[in-house]
Order: sequence, then C-alpha cells, then structure tokens
Amino acid sequence: MKIFFGTGNPNKVQEVSAILKRYGIIVKQFPIERVEIQADELEPVARFSLEMVKNEIPGPCFVEDAGLFINALNGFPGPYSSYAFKKIGNRGILNLMKEVTDRTACFKSAIAFLKPGENMQIVVGETFGKIALEIRGSGWGFDPIFVPEESGQKTYGEMTPSEKNEVSHRQKALKKLVNLLDVETNR
Amino acid sequence: MKIFFGTGNPNKVQEVSAILKRYGIIVKQFPIERVEIQADELEPVARFSLEMVKNEIPGPCFVEDAGLFINALNGFPGPYSSYAFKKIGNRGILNLMKEVTDRTACFKSAIAFLKPGENMQIVVGETFGKIALEIRGSGWGFDPIFVPEESGQKTYGEMTPSEKNEVSHRQKALKKLVNLLDVETNR
Repeated sequence: MKIFFGTGNPNKVQEVSAILKRYGIIVKQFPIERVEIQADELEPVARFSLEMVKNEIPGPCFVEDAGLFINALNGFPGPYSSYAFKKIGNRGILNLMKEVTDRTACFKSAIAFLKPGENMQIVVGETFGKIALEIRGSGWGFDPIFVPEESGQKTYGEMTPSEKNEVSHRQKALKKLVNLLDVETNR
Repeated sequence: MKIFFGTGNPNKVQEVSAILKRYGIIVKQFPIERVEIQADELEPVARFSLEMVKNEIPGPCFVEDAGLFINALNGFPGPYSSYAFKKIGNRGILNLMKEVTDRTACFKSAIAFLKPGENMQIVVGETFGKIALEIRGSGWGFDPIFVPEESGQKTYGEMTPSEKNEVSHRQKALKKLVNLLDVETNR
C-alpha cells in the first residue's frame, strides 16, 4: 500500500521509508507548509498540523512530530526540539546540563494519521535514555547526545541507521501506525 | 474608547492597561484559548492567533506576542520565550550565556490588531539591550536578566512599573497601536 507523509524534512522521509518498507508500505512525501502550534505536548502539535491540511491530502496521510524531553529541564526542549536545535544546538543542551546529575530523558514521536473521510488517529512512540556528557557520533538533530537505554552506551548518532531503527521512538510510533493500517486493510 | 485584548496573561493585562489608560483607552480582557504557531518571528504568531479568533471578537481587538531575542544564541528563545521561561527560566538562559562575550539582545513585541470587517494590521516595538550577568530584581518572565540600553544598568526587573513602561518594547508597540487607533477614529 501507499501512504502520504506530510513533512518538509528529508531526513525524516528517509528514516520513515526505511522502516515502513519492511511492512511493504511505500511512503510518498507530501510536501506541506506545516503549521505547528505551540503546546507542551507533541500530540496536539501533530493533530493540529494534520487538521490544517486534511482537505488537501490525496489519500491516507500522516504527519509526525518528535521531541526530546529532558527531565531535569522540565521537559525542555520537547515540542520545540527542532527550533532549539537550530538555535542552541547540542552544545546548548550540554551547557544547560552542566552540573546536572539527573540526565534522564525521553525521545518521543507522535503520529497523526488520517484516511480521508475517517476520524483522525494518534499514536505515540517513546524511547527512554539519558543525555550524554559530550557530543558523540553524527546523525541529525539531538541524535549525538541521546543514549537510549536499549543501546548500552552508544548515542543515536553512533549507531548505524538500522541499529537506530531497532530502538528509536520513531520506529515505535511507526509500528503502531502499521497496526492501525492493518486494521484498516483487514476491514 | 474601548478595546479588547485577547490574552490569558494577567501580567500583560495589567501592564497594557496602565499604558493605554494614558491615551484614554480602556482595555477589556478577552480571554481566549490562543493558538500560537511555531515560527522564527513574532509577527506570524500574533497574526495567526488573531486569525483564529477573528470571528468571535466582540469589537476592535488585539493580541500581543513578545519575545527576547539573544544574538549569541541566534535569536533564542525568541517566539518561544514563555515556553523557555517556564522550562529553563532565567537560570537556564544565564547558563547558556556562560563564557559568552556578546550579550546583546532585543526584546520585541508584536501586536496584531483587527477591527471587525477591516484588514488586520501588525505593529512591532523593539528595545535593545543586553543580558545581565546575574538575576537582578523581580518582575515576570525574563525581566530580571534584561538590561535595556536606555536604562543605564538596571534590569527591567529592577525598575518600577512606570520606569519599565517608559522604555519597554511593549510600550513602543502600544504607541504604534494608538497611532493606528487615531487614524481609525479620525476617519
């Protein structure tokens, strides 16, 4: 089956396509000017983004919003992760975490999915871990400073794409999306 | 004359009322669930907020969005100032500014104004200054760490409300709003 992914981020398209390909799902980028609202959680951001374009989508479509929630920073940068990354980067987060002992964090992904004429559905994936003491590896966004619990000591940025896709928040949300699609197609 | 101010922030209502009273303008709070979008600048945030409620406003109405733009942080926290304040506070900003020599910053206020049946208008006020080396005084938001150029050495937080209102970004935007209103009433 084919599904549209409303995003302007080519990194996400690549990552999402690689994961959904395993399930025989072909991802078509649907390049939208997303309207993201300011909210404390990801779900309303994803919901609102899709609401704004729901009359334009050419078929089953989803949008995804992701964020890094750092406990010692009260959840910052959360839904504002891409803005915070652009402005203060990994270095800025590490500066905020200097002398902070609780380095636990959670990377979350929220997906809003809509099949034209049906109700919107939201699924969420979470990967718990901690903030590294320094930037390690490459990858995009906060990948080089996030160490998922499942990985031992590697940051997302030190993993191969397929290693990251085994444990990532995005992969967990996408699996739930696939479950929704199964329900859809078996009806 | 009477004007509606769409906001949920009582601090803003108080500050705005004190300034507009001088011009014989009475401010009525119009308590709205504002939808704020994610954007790099304030103007689209204010515009969008007002667009979302324009069919509900009971008369001439404005919304205001303000933010602290720090040059060394590429404009962070900017339109996300209230979120950043809630999450990392003044202490977080000072941590990001450790060992940073360029402490210049700008506090901006954008006002979107709409008279039912007319086109929306946007005005902006800016106050340039620098980020203090420590938290000084009281006040709300980032007031205790922002030293406006016009003030000598005092932070917004060390000024009396009327001292702050002499130099503040919000007062500058409100003066421009008053000019718009004059144009309106002289027509």
